Order: sequence, then structure tokens, then C-alpha cells
Amino acid sequence: MAIQRPKGTQDHLPEGSPKLTLDTRAAAFDYVRETARRVLERAGAQRIDTPLFEEAELVKRGVGGSTDIVRKEMFTVYYFGDHGGFILRPEGTAGIVRAYLQNGWKQLPAPFKIWLCGPMFRAENVQKGRLRQFHQVDYEVFGSTDPLVDAEAIALMVDVVRELGLKKVKVKLGSIGDPEDREAYNDYLRELFTPHVERLSDDSKDRLTRNPMRILDSKSAGDQELIAELGVRPMLDFLGAEAGAHFEQVQQYLRDWNVEFDLDPSIVRGLDYYRRTAWELHHEGVGAKSALGGGGRYDGLAEQLGGAAVPGIGWAFGIERLLLAMEADGVEMPAPGGPQLYLVALDEENVPLVARLAREARAYARTEFAYRAMKVGNAFKDAERRGAVWVGLMGSEEAANGTVSLKNMVTGEQQTVGVGELATFLQKSDD
Amino acid sequence: MAIQRPKGTQDHLPEGSPKLTLDTRAAAFDYVRETARRVLERAGAQRIDTPLFEEAELVKRGVGGSTDIVRKEMFTVYYFGDHGGFILRPEGTAGIVRAYLQNGWKQLPAPFKIWLCGPMFRAENVQKGRLRQFHQVDYEVFGSTDPLVDAEAIALMVDVVRELGLKKVKVKLGSIGDPEDREAYNDYLRELFTPHVERLSDDSKDRLTRNPMRILDSKSAGDQELIAELGVRPMLDFLGAEAGAHFEQVQQYLRDWNVEFDLDPSIVRGLDYYRRTAWELHHEGVGAKSALGGGGRYDGLAEQLGGAAVPGIGWAFGIERLLLAMEADGVEMPAPGGPQLYLVALDEENVPLVARLAREARAYARTEFAYRAMKVGNAFKDAERRGAVWVGLMGSEEAANGTVSLKNMVTGEQQTVGVGELATFLQKSDD
Repeated sequence: MAIQRPKGTQDHLPEGSPKLTLDTRAAAFDYVRETARRVLERAGAQRIDTPLFEEAELVKRGVGGSTDIVRKEMFTVYYFGDHGGFILRPEGTAGIVRAYLQNGWKQLPAPFKIWLCGPMFRAENVQKGRLRQFHQVDYEVFGSTDPLVDAEAIALMVDVVRELGLKKVKVKLGSIGDPEDREAYNDYLRELFTPHVERLSDDSKDRLTRNPMRILDSKSAGDQELIAELGVRPMLDFLGAEAGAHFEQVQQYLRDWNVEFDLDPSIVRGLDYYRRTAWELHHEGVGAKSALGGGGRYDGLAEQLGGAAVPGIGWAFGIERLLLAMEADGVEMPAPGGPQLYLVALDEENVPLVARLAREARAYARTEFAYRAMKVGNAFKDAERRGAVWVGLMGSEEAANGTVSLKNMVTGEQQTVGVGELATFLQKSDD
Repeated sequence: MAIQRPKGTQDHLPEGSPKLTLDTRAAAFDYVRETARRVLERAGAQRIDTPLFEEAELVKRGVGGSTDIVRKEMFTVYYFGDHGGFILRPEGTAGIVRAYLQNGWKQLPAPFKIWLCGPMFRAENVQKGRLRQFHQVDYEVFGSTDPLVDAEAIALMVDVVRELGLKKVKVKLGSIGDPEDREAYNDYLRELFTPHVERLSDDSKDRLTRNPMRILDSKSAGDQELIAELGVRPMLDFLGAEAGAHFEQVQQYLRDWNVEFDLDPSIVRGLDYYRRTAWELHHEGVGAKSALGGGGRYDGLAEQLGGAAVPGIGWAFGIERLLLAMEADGVEMPAPGGPQLYLVALDEENVPLVARLAREARAYARTEFAYRAMKVGNAFKDAERRGAVWVGLMGSEEAANGTVSLKNMVTGEQQTVGVGELATFLQKSDD
């Protein structure tokens, strides 16, 4: 058997491919990328990119050493045999903050907005919508703690997916406050759970000491039962005055702009450098774990990576999950058509002439040609199969007269055009 | 010190970044990609992509186990600790042929043309124009051995770099014939070199047994001296009738289309699956090792990868090397401008109004706004720094009247426009 691609990866396929689905269709990735570009660049963001692999230490500090991503899902990269031990980037933010610090972007006017579109890598157990090489659109803003920046980031994320045609999307919004608020909340949780410690899962017993908030995130059914039983108060009840006012303003802006959201007290982020606003974007079409992506403020991250402090906020969504949601919603995407012109020589000696005309016509329109002479009937069949708008025939008579016999495959209209007028004809017929 | 990016990798930077060069400028990569797209898609090629890592066996068979790439420059990827042993793709062709076989593209109309743009990885010694993560544009055609397909591939490669503004490019063209021609040539070389075996380098002594053609490729000065002394005849002298006629036709088409080329007998490819046409694209601006890229026919590759036989031909150029050549040639690239409109509130209570207007205006034009109120003088300074075309001021008077005071930063022209007419104004002013 021929060698296959690695598990958890996909090829991005051309039109007409057998078994083509939206999340393997190369044109769909282009469409998402260019739609995101239009929305985000109109808001003043610039596209950037960072390397596909980074120092292991960056990923550990940026994503968190205790997360599943770092503990179980990292792809490690070696070169010259055993040098390096780099990590294929599992997400975009750590590398982007590293790039911010290393490239002196602090000198640029703040708030400084960028976006990135590219592959990410996590060695997850493969299932629908969970790939080992997947693709994200990322948006990040640096240099401002203004709630207006938070609201704009959330609204832009919604704008992108709406522009892509998704209707049933929902923002779940929360705030994890400032570090001192989280400390107060952790104190409360510790007091609440300690009398019931024997009912907690082993992982959560450990969390109770280190970071009780992460108990709320637990995947254990027993833990979730206990949480429901105890009627745990949400993090939002513990926001301090400043974080509370900030969160209130974020919501006010979203209401101003008619961006719908639900407050969701279950949004918790365990890592120290997260601050205040956090959200997820959900879509019914992708099932129970319906998140298309999420975002949050991470004012402490740059320092965590050894740099100077700089406030930041950002979001990312997975392109494959988004495409599955679009498929579930029946969203139509503009289909790339066939060539504007398909030129065919009716005898072998006119193939070079057809090839030359095609090369010239390509300055004006997508033009294909038959590499071998064909009979008229076959030329029409082939043009149809390729989705051509016009078919152009070159027989001995046309060659002698310096013309091409054109037929419109859609309307049936027929024309004879001089080879010198083909350019003008194509420019007009493309309108 | 903050964590740095891995050696041999680059960030793709936004406009205004300190130390911005053409080969680190994100907009330049977009420009190359979109220019390649225009040229190649007008010729009927479709964009595809393949995973960034592949089975080690694919890379070994596809690139050749005895090449420097496989022996010294591979990035190896592990997951779940020590699983996988995948290879980050060092070039595009092996993965593309794998994708052709795995996705049933044989069912699509031939010749089937695709292109790919993306990162490649080689753990080389880092120097100018030689990165460990670099980027390529690839073009491949499957399903035809017609010399017209070869000529078109070469011409399209030249078209892309010319469309990018490069003038001093040169095609160096050769043919390595069919396997039996290469065998005849190898017999000739073996006979020629055997009496001088003691003067050959150790590597070349080994090559003399296995594949004498590769002696011509040797980096040893002694070997090259001997080659010059012996007056080695070129591969082209050994082309059989079929390969010779094929090569003649390729040249005829290129002359027809005014694509300049030099015959270069030094182009040899050691691997078994290469056939006939082979070429390199050179540019004076990138120095002695002036190749921007190269291409060739590889009719035997699909079988080598365990699939059914399918003829193929393709090329790739390195985007970073191309950008260095463009920089050397002083090629100007369309510069991304600033926002069409920069909105500023003159007092804090009008910031939400300005934010809302900006969100609406973004449906029509790139619009930025100040997140904090500013004095008029600062608003103009900030608008200039951001390269804005129009600055729009919102003071208490404008807010009361439902207007915006606009000033053109280029012409000095001033206008007062109702907030409801801002959309129309932007659409008109963008012409």
C-alpha cells in the first residue's frame, strides 16, 4: 500500500476531489482566511506569523505546565539527531507575545492589533473536529486595559463568524477578576470543599491545595455532583470594585452594539496570568462541546515569558470546527468556477497556436487549453466537464483566417473572434 | 532575558516594525502568495495543502535516503513521548504525490495542476537566505508526459517571478533523459573515471560504483579538477531518440513564447525517479549560489512511494530567497496604507459614540478610532502617525448636531458630514 498521511492530519483538497467535505476543501480555508482578513484589517489589525515551532520553555510557561496540552499533547521536534527539543506550537498566543517582546512592537502605536492564521498542533485522541494538525484564526491586542478593547475584541470575533454566514452563535461571557479577587474566591472554595474532601476525585484533592478554582473545571462526574449539591457561588460574585466596573463596561459596549451574550459563571481559567474578561464562542451545530473558540485577557503573560509587562487580550477559533458548524448550518460558500475560456485545437498542428493564445489570454482571464487535438464533440464534452464558460475551437479554417470559433457553454451563443481581439472579448465577457 | 525564537526561524512582521526587511515583512509574503495565485490559477491550477509533517519513510523515499536533506537536515517529530518519528516536510513534492495517490486525484481531468504555498523545514547551517523554517511556492502537474506540459511549467515559473517584478532571472535548462540513457551515460563515466580512481575523493570513489553521475555534483575541488581535465561529455550527448525529441520540443515551445533559457549540461539529478526535463531558475541578485528554485519531471516517483504509476512534473521556489532578490533589484511592492478614517472623540463621553460609528463604518472602509478622548492637535498628530487619509472629530457640538468634522490629512480639505451619511461619504472617498 502507498504511504498514508499521519493520523489526525488532513490534506486540503482541490475542487472536484472525491469525498470532498467543507473541512478538507482548500477553497474553504482560503474563504475563511480572506473573510477574517477583511473584517480584522478594516478594524486596523495587521497580519503576522510566527514560527511553527518554539522553545519548549515558551510553550510550558505560555500555556501552563499543568495543562493537558503541555502534559499530554505536545509534539516535540528534534534536529541534528537529538538537538532542540522544540515544540510544535499548540496555540498562537505564547508565540505572538514572544514575537511582541522580541521585535520591539512596544514602539508601535497602542492599542496594537494583530491577527494570525495558521496551523497548530496537539497530539490529541483523534475524533470529529479534533485533529492533530488543525488551523486557527487568532486576534490579539496589546498595550491597553481599556474595557472598550475587550468589547471590541469580542465583537470582532462575532463579526468574523457572522460574516462567514453562521447564525446560531452565542457568546458565553465571564470575568475572572484580578489576582486578589481570585485569591478571595479560592479561599471561599477551599473553605467550602474542605469538609467534603473525601468525596473529591484524586485530581481535585490536589487542586484543593494548589488551585481550588480548577475543581469547577473537573471532568469527574462525582466532582460535578458535589459542586451542584453545594450550590457553589460563581466567581462573578467575588469581583473587586475595579474588575467589576471593567466587566460592567464591557457588557455595556456589547449591548450598545447589539452583540448578544450570556453571562456564564462556569468560565474559569486556572493560569495566573489571566485577568478579568474571558469568553467562549459557541455554536449549536457542533454538538455538546460546542465551542468554536474562546478568548480572554492575559495581562500577566509577557512577564511570565521573561519580558516587560504589557497588557494583552485575544481570541482564537478553530477553522475546522467552524467549517463543521457552517456545514451543519448549510451555509453556502461561493463556489470557484471553471475557466472563462477553454481552447481546443481540432488538429495536432494547431496545438502550439492554441497554447500560445492561451498564454496570452491568461493576462486577462482564467484560460485552459487541450494539450492534444480533439474532435468538436469531445471538445464540448471536455469543456463542460471542466466547467468552462466559453469553449474556443481552432481548426485549419480558423488558423488560416486568424480567428477562433467561440461557443458559450451556458447560453449556447456562438461568435467568431479574431485572435487579436481575444483579449478585449475576454475582458468584456468577464463583466 | 525573554525567551527568543529558535535559530533559523523568522517572525513575519507588521508594517512599522523596527528592523523590517522584505523577507520578514508579512505583507510581502501575502503579496508573493497572491501574485502566485493569480498567475497559477489563471492557468488552471488549484491550491492545495498537505500536512506539515509526514511519515519518515515518505520523506526518505521521496527525497532520497542518500541526500544531505535526509542524512543531515531532517527535523524529527515525536508525540505521546516517543511515538511517531515523523519528519517536518523538507520540500513539497513527496507529500503532494502522497496526497495525489491517497485522495484519488487520478479521477480528475488530466493534466491535473495544483499549487501549494507554505512552510518547509531543513536543519541547515543558518546563513543569509538559508533558514530552517522557510517558505515555498510549489507547482505540480500530474497525468501527462507531453513536452508542452514541461514547457508550460517552466514558463509559469518565470511568469510568477516576472509578475513579482524581478527582471534579471535566467532559466538553466537540461535533460537527464530516460533511465536507459542515464545507464549509458553512467557506463561512459565509469569507463572514463576508473583509470583515475585514486584521484577521486572517498565519496566519489563510492559514487563510481553506485551512481557515477553524482561525481559531477561533487563539492570536492580535486574531483572538479579531474572533471575539467578529462573534458567530460555532458548528459545531453547521451539522450536517446525519444528523450531527445521530447527535449527539443520543450525548447521549441519556450522559444515560441519568448521564454529565455540557457542549456546547462551541469544539471544532473541522481535519484532514479527523475526523468528528462530538469531546470533551475537563477537570479544575479542572490549571489553565487544564485538559484531561486528549480524543477523537473519525476515520472517514477509515485511508484517509488508505493502507488500506481503517474507521470508528474513540478517546480518550487523559496519565498525568502525571492524576496532577497527583489530587495537586491530594488523592486517596489504596493505598500499597505493606513486607515481610510480615524475617528477621535474630543471628550470622554463621546468615546462610545465614536466606537459605535467606527464599527458601522468598517462595513465600508478600514476605520480606526481613539480609545480615549484627545485634544484636536493630538488627534491630528496621531492620525498622521497612523497614516490615516481622513481624521474625523467628534466634540460636544458635533454630537449635539449628529455630525462629524472631517479633515483630509493629505489635501487639507475639510467637511462636515451627518453621522448617517458617513457610509456614503466613505464609499465615495474610497474611489
